[in-house]
Amino acid sequence: MAALPATDDTQWVLTLSCIDGPGIVHAISGAVVAAGGNIAESQQFASADTGRFFMRLQVEAIAQPESFQERFTGSLAPVTERYHMTWRLDTVGRPVRTLILGSTATHCVNDLLYRRRGGQLPIEVPLVLSNHDTMRDIAEFYDVPFEHRAIAGPEDKAAFEARVLEAVEELDIELVVLARYMQILSPELCEALAGKAINIHHSFLPGFKGANPYKQAHQRGVKLIGATAHFVTTDLDEGPIIEQDVTRVDHSYSPRELVQLGQDEEARVLRRAVNWFAENRILADGDRTIIFR
Amino acid sequence: MAALPATDDTQWVLTLSCIDGPGIVHAISGAVVAAGGNIAESQQFASADTGRFFMRLQVEAIAQPESFQERFTGSLAPVTERYHMTWRLDTVGRPVRTLILGSTATHCVNDLLYRRRGGQLPIEVPLVLSNHDTMRDIAEFYDVPFEHRAIAGPEDKAAFEARVLEAVEELDIELVVLARYMQILSPELCEALAGKAINIHHSFLPGFKGANPYKQAHQRGVKLIGATAHFVTTDLDEGPIIEQDVTRVDHSYSPRELVQLGQDEEARVLRRAVNWFAENRILADGDRTIIFR
Amino acid sequence: MAALPATDDTQWVLTLSCIDGPGIVHAISGAVVAAGGNIAESQQFASADTGRFFMRLQVEAIAQPESFQERFTGSLAPVTERYHMTWRLDTVGRPVRTLILGSTATHCVNDLLYRRRGGQLPIEVPLVLSNHDTMRDIAEFYDVPFEHRAIAGPEDKAAFEARVLEAVEELDIELVVLARYMQILSPELCEALAGKAINIHHSFLPGFKGANPYKQAHQRGVKLIGATAHFVTTDLDEGPIIEQDVTRVDHSYSPRELVQLGQDEEARVLRRAVNWFAENRILADGDRTIIFR
Amino acid sequence: MAALPATDDTQWVLTLSCIDGPGIVHAISGAVVAAGGNIAESQQFASADTGRFFMRLQVEAIAQPESFQERFTGSLAPVTERYHMTWRLDTVGRPVRTLILGSTATHCVNDLLYRRRGGQLPIEVPLVLSNHDTMRDIAEFYDVPFEHRAIAGPEDKAAFEARVLEAVEELDIELVVLARYMQILSPELCEALAGKAINIHHSFLPGFKGANPYKQAHQRGVKLIGATAHFVTTDLDEGPIIEQDVTRVDHSYSPRELVQLGQDEEARVLRRAVNWFAENRILADGDRTIIFR
Repeated sequence: MAALPATDDTQWVLTLSCIDGPGIVHAISGAVVAAGGNIAESQQFASADTGRFFMRLQVEAIAQPESFQERFTGSLAPVTERYHMTWRLDTVGRPVRTLILGSTATHCVNDLLYRRRGGQLPIEVPLVLSNHDTMRDIAEFYDVPFEHRAIAGPEDKAAFEARVLEAVEELDIELVVLARYMQILSPELCEALAGKAINIHHSFLPGFKGANPYKQAHQRGVKLIGATAHFVTTDLDEGPIIEQDVTRVDHSYSPRELVQLGQDEEARVLRRAVNWFAENRILADGDRTIIFR
Repeated sequence: MAALPATDDTQWVLTLSCIDGPGIVHAISGAVVAAGGNIAESQQFASADTGRFFMRLQVEAIAQPESFQERFTGSLAPVTERYHMTWRLDTVGRPVRTLILGSTATHCVNDLLYRRRGGQLPIEVPLVLSNHDTMRDIAEFYDVPFEHRAIAGPEDKAAFEARVLEAVEELDIELVVLARYMQILSPELCEALAGKAINIHHSFLPGFKGANPYKQAHQRGVKLIGATAHFVTTDLDEGPIIEQDVTRVDHSYSPRELVQLGQDEEARVLRRAVNWFAENRILADGDRTIIFR
Repeated sequence: MAALPATDDTQWVLTLSCIDGPGIVHAISGAVVAAGGNIAESQQFASADTGRFFMRLQVEAIAQPESFQERFTGSLAPVTERYHMTWRLDTVGRPVRTLILGSTATHCVNDLLYRRRGGQLPIEVPLVLSNHDTMRDIAEFYDVPFEHRAIAGPEDKAAFEARVLEAVEELDIELVVLARYMQILSPELCEALAGKAINIHHSFLPGFKGANPYKQAHQRGVKLIGATAHFVTTDLDEGPIIEQDVTRVDHSYSPRELVQLGQDEEARVLRRAVNWFAENRILADGDRTIIFR
Repeated sequence: MAALPATDDTQWVLTLSCIDGPGIVHAISGAVVAAGGNIAESQQFASADTGRFFMRLQVEAIAQPESFQERFTGSLAPVTERYHMTWRLDTVGRPVRTLILGSTATHCVNDLLYRRRGGQLPIEVPLVLSNHDTMRDIAEFYDVPFEHRAIAGPEDKAAFEARVLEAVEELDIELVVLARYMQILSPELCEALAGKAINIHHSFLPGFKGANPYKQAHQRGVKLIGATAHFVTTDLDEGPIIEQDVTRVDHSYSPRELVQLGQDEEARVLRRAVNWFAENRILADGDRTIIFR
């Protein structure tokens, strides 16, 4: 974890949302001033769809940083109350405790762990949990605890999911990343992890249902293949979209090549989604996400 | 049409397909040599899906170009027969006779006509036929005949489609472009135009069914919007894909802005598809297209 | 101009910059509240390079919009004074008075005028001034005054530039767009138009000096060609960058095809830059631009 | 190496170039037929710049594959002689022996070794040679020999380069990859490795000279950052371009973020260039490359 920028208590990030109305920015910025802070970064968005207001602030504690949190929560309290705000205060750069779930494919977990080690991804990973053993050596190389629990039937799956919930509890997990974990989550687990589980899946134009979508994409001759990262909901692969990207292909690409390029996109898109989550840049607006990049 | 490169009889393009097997390239290139030609460009593809072989050749007539076509068809005949080839011989740069169908939106027709005038698109347009009058002035500015036939009911639609078929016949139309023509074609018309009608439509990840897809895309918070050009088949919006592209958006784009960006993509994607068709670069491989760019 | 959204006096845009420091957002948002406004959109940026703070606000006048401007300038005055702000207040959607300069190539002017007519670009164009006559019919089609002044020698050029300055004065020009105007501007004209003239030029990796860059790009076998829109300064083609984009090419593209693709990029990039300028989304930060998209 | 597709002697790749003229394709395809082969893939290009013809063929040995090479070289001999061809015959999928040179940054070497292990890159790496020790653990994890030779002065550098040449000789190296090796190669080494050494470097629009280009790019406010892979020549960073790509940035990216995104582009671009080299897809056409993708 040494390579990560040291978190300190002078840089804070505040995210909030509430019903939109006049005076919100003035009230919030007043609380910052009152606490002896300076706004270093600020983004906001008023959603015409839901009528809600969203804001993300990075605030520098100018004087007496050691007591800034106390002062700021104090000056914020009347504001968040008056506007019935949902809000969250965190330090900038704090590594987010992340549980990674995997199966056989290693491209996503390898990408996440390589970047975490290089200090490019503010997460810490107390556990990689997989229903296959293929990523053990990668986890070990990156000094991350690895646990293999095979799933041969419904009972195994229930046990696996119980282990997920237990790990979330025991290890203070804030984010669960489905890094090509190939089992469908039970509705109970989806609900238990609502808003803190990110999934990655391939995506095509047009979308394909059923098994082996890359083969279908090849047969239809699609010219773009891509990936979508989204929050896990009980609606399979239909949760709020966090990030998407595509790459060009043509008729000469074999299904095998499509899979490889698709995996590259998956790793890139998942990495961005995890990074934005860890930096408190994602806010939920109904079925949409607001991304304050 | 003056700005278009003058077509001549020294540059020829041959496209062909047949069951794959040894000796095809040797036989074809032998026919080129025998006719006194030189291969200037050549592309080929063997489809593992259908077992078919596809080829596109640009051939320069070296000596006595005025009789090259006769010599080449003569030397090709035994080859195309032996391999049961589907083939087509054309001159390079010959403007393809194109019928444009439109409704209210002008972005696609404007883009096509602007580029045709600049000599960037080897098409000639003997008619723009529309069920609305909005693109009349654009057609007139570009000196292209325009015809408005309103569609108020099923009978009007049948008459419109009859006029399409009549125009195809009378005007020697080789390509029909649905440039945001917003009526669903009857199965009969789809079949009559099979392989020579190109449609453009918006496309999203995920795909959205039903009315107002841009609004749906906005509500789901998609991060990419795009367009797909495809051949018209009786399967609505599901014909062989010719070209696709996307552009990035984020939560701050209004549905109105999404529409504008989507229109830009539509114009770009349709323009490329029309250009490839006019240059004999698109070959059909079952439900897929082979694009020899 | 009919298709442009009617500007009204209920939607205002405020842009400002000053030395960064605590309390700015609070002071500005206080002035909004005091004037009876609501912040509909807000973006800000603190530049670590120059130590300056930048902000763009869209403000809705809630009560008595007819006198909002007066109230808001009144409540802003002590704030802008205290922080020594550079600032500007405008209505949202007001068409910006734009002078277009051209030479022979029509792709940029055609794109700008087509979009203006469709209500997609909030500009009005009281004059297109060109040293060639090639774009006259396009200007006339779009009902825009056109003036042709040939440049055969230095005296003609001086006269052309004098006409530019005169037109800027007489026609209340706010933005001058060099839409492939192929003459080098005199240092005097560059200075006179500082901060309100946008140029577009091709750009490559690596950059090429001297004549016929597309031929050089072809000879070096570049894989990307693109365009850059920037503010005009006396440093030829080195002014603050507003927007850039590229498209992929390969060895098979002829110099002629490179030029066509390059022109598509130029039109797209210039259109975005002009739109952002017209919407007050570009702020200068030393040699850089801040783009509040 | 187990995951790599087994190379066999039924799939061959032939690359060739010669002065363009009639009959070449017919002669080559005749040699394929005579040897009992079938053309599975074929690409060709006639360079208008140099007047040369380029071709890449994948040929399947249909009957008696064990003696195909002998038969094919026999039937090719009169053809390659008549047309004074430069040519090369290889088996498809054979891992290319690759020497990787590095310094401190690990992103490129990590990407190459991860993909080689997954069977996505047909290379074998008998040695990673670096003037810093930072990538030792990565090399060891991927079971690749690693050698660290510090460079403190000119003599160390000469010794390092001597070791490169020795390793090329001893280990039958076919490709040298400069994976962010930060020393300038001597002209002698450049010449010794002509056509078989690939370098990766960042690239910007506009290009920046001198130290710390990312800081310069930040100061100029570029909107795109990218990378270029090219063959090493004595002209520093000016060798024939193999591949380029870019990613979008904006004013809010810090120099540190620009570096990270730039590294992602470098790894992607270098990986593609190495893959194309290993698959015999790159042919030299003067200062340009022909890429038969």
